Amino acid sequence: MTEQKATNVTWHDHTVSKEDRLKLNGHKSAVLWFTGLSACGKSTVANTVDHILHEKGIHTFVLDGDNVRMGLNKNLGFSAEDRTENIRRIGEVAKLFCDAGLFVLTAFISPYRVDRDRVREILGEGEFIEVFVNASLETCEARDPKGLYKKARAGEIKGFTGIDDPYEEPENPELTLDADNKGIDELAEEVVAYLDSNGYLSA
Amino acid sequence: MTEQKATNVTWHDHTVSKEDRLKLNGHKSAVLWFTGLSACGKSTVANTVDHILHEKGIHTFVLDGDNVRMGLNKNLGFSAEDRTENIRRIGEVAKLFCDAGLFVLTAFISPYRVDRDRVREILGEGEFIEVFVNASLETCEARDPKGLYKKARAGEIKGFTGIDDPYEEPENPELTLDADNKGIDELAEEVVAYLDSNGYLSA
Repeated sequence: MTEQKATNVTWHDHTVSKEDRLKLNGHKSAVLWFTGLSACGKSTVANTVDHILHEKGIHTFVLDGDNVRMGLNKNLGFSAEDRTENIRRIGEVAKLFCDAGLFVLTAFISPYRVDRDRVREILGEGEFIEVFVNASLETCEARDPKGLYKKARAGEIKGFTGIDDPYEEPENPELTLDADNKGIDELAEEVVAYLDSNGYLSA
Repeated sequence: MTEQKATNVTWHDHTVSKEDRLKLNGHKSAVLWFTGLSACGKSTVANTVDHILHEKGIHTFVLDGDNVRMGLNKNLGFSAEDRTENIRRIGEVAKLFCDAGLFVLTAFISPYRVDRDRVREILGEGEFIEVFVNASLETCEARDPKGLYKKARAGEIKGFTGIDDPYEEPENPELTLDADNKGIDELAEEVVAYLDSNGYLSA
């Protein structure tokens, strides 16, 4: 038993801290939380930022509908309760990635302020970067790549954000992107410039 | 609209693949799934392996009770249904970390074979490394660092693994560690040697 206790003491020395992981990576970590209407360009901008950062040798990961709705959150539907739980779980996973030393980019409509603010609260100072991808409903509805707005207008989809369910704009986002008037690459560069000028990209 | 469509085409080129992330890190990725009785040494061995890998410049992360039960899975209890959901979520998060190019080490009792096998199924070939931390009930009960076995024997905790709930040993684990007879450092080195000899530690 004495030997085992000694090993337990060693355990604390062996824990790799968040600071250790940041040092290995050579940069800080944060959650880049992209929010906005369906078809506003969240996922496209997030993936473009991801690409730019990756090319710089920065460690990143994207959480989006493709890898979350089919896996971790596949047992959630679209009720008010399930939408809140959806965002809660994504926030908790984003926090784990941030603790692991990565920039995690999330691309979900996340229409409710209270849900987004709850994610901000579980993260440390400067670790939650809310990126409001601001495209007007008109722009998004004109794009409508999956025909979802059309279905919502026809009443075939209920509770669709922007049509019969509200989108609550961020009050104090770290970044607001003008997705009505600027192209994807320009918006992505704005995000990277924000990270760079705020010291995120060095250790 | 034409411009937007062109941007969408570009999007696919901009997606950073798992292979791209592995290339940046310079090593493969996998889930090291430590399983065994309470107090068998899972967490201690996992953290020691984590430390050794980190010192080698390898990108890692540990998922354990400390960062999962208080966060992602804080709305789960200990019913049979919740235990299964607990392991399912951990498995899905581990898969995301693996996709991000990291070695993720999980340290949970995970007593049921079907739950562990379900995690194996969602991962790719060679990405699920089941590490059975094999300590006898006698050893674990003699350690009992948190007095949990004592409480379970007294009937103060119900459904405690090894006492009044079964631990289903892995049938074909990638690794079995003899935690009755070997020390933590020796066991951790066995895990690292497995990764090294199976080509995980290079790109």
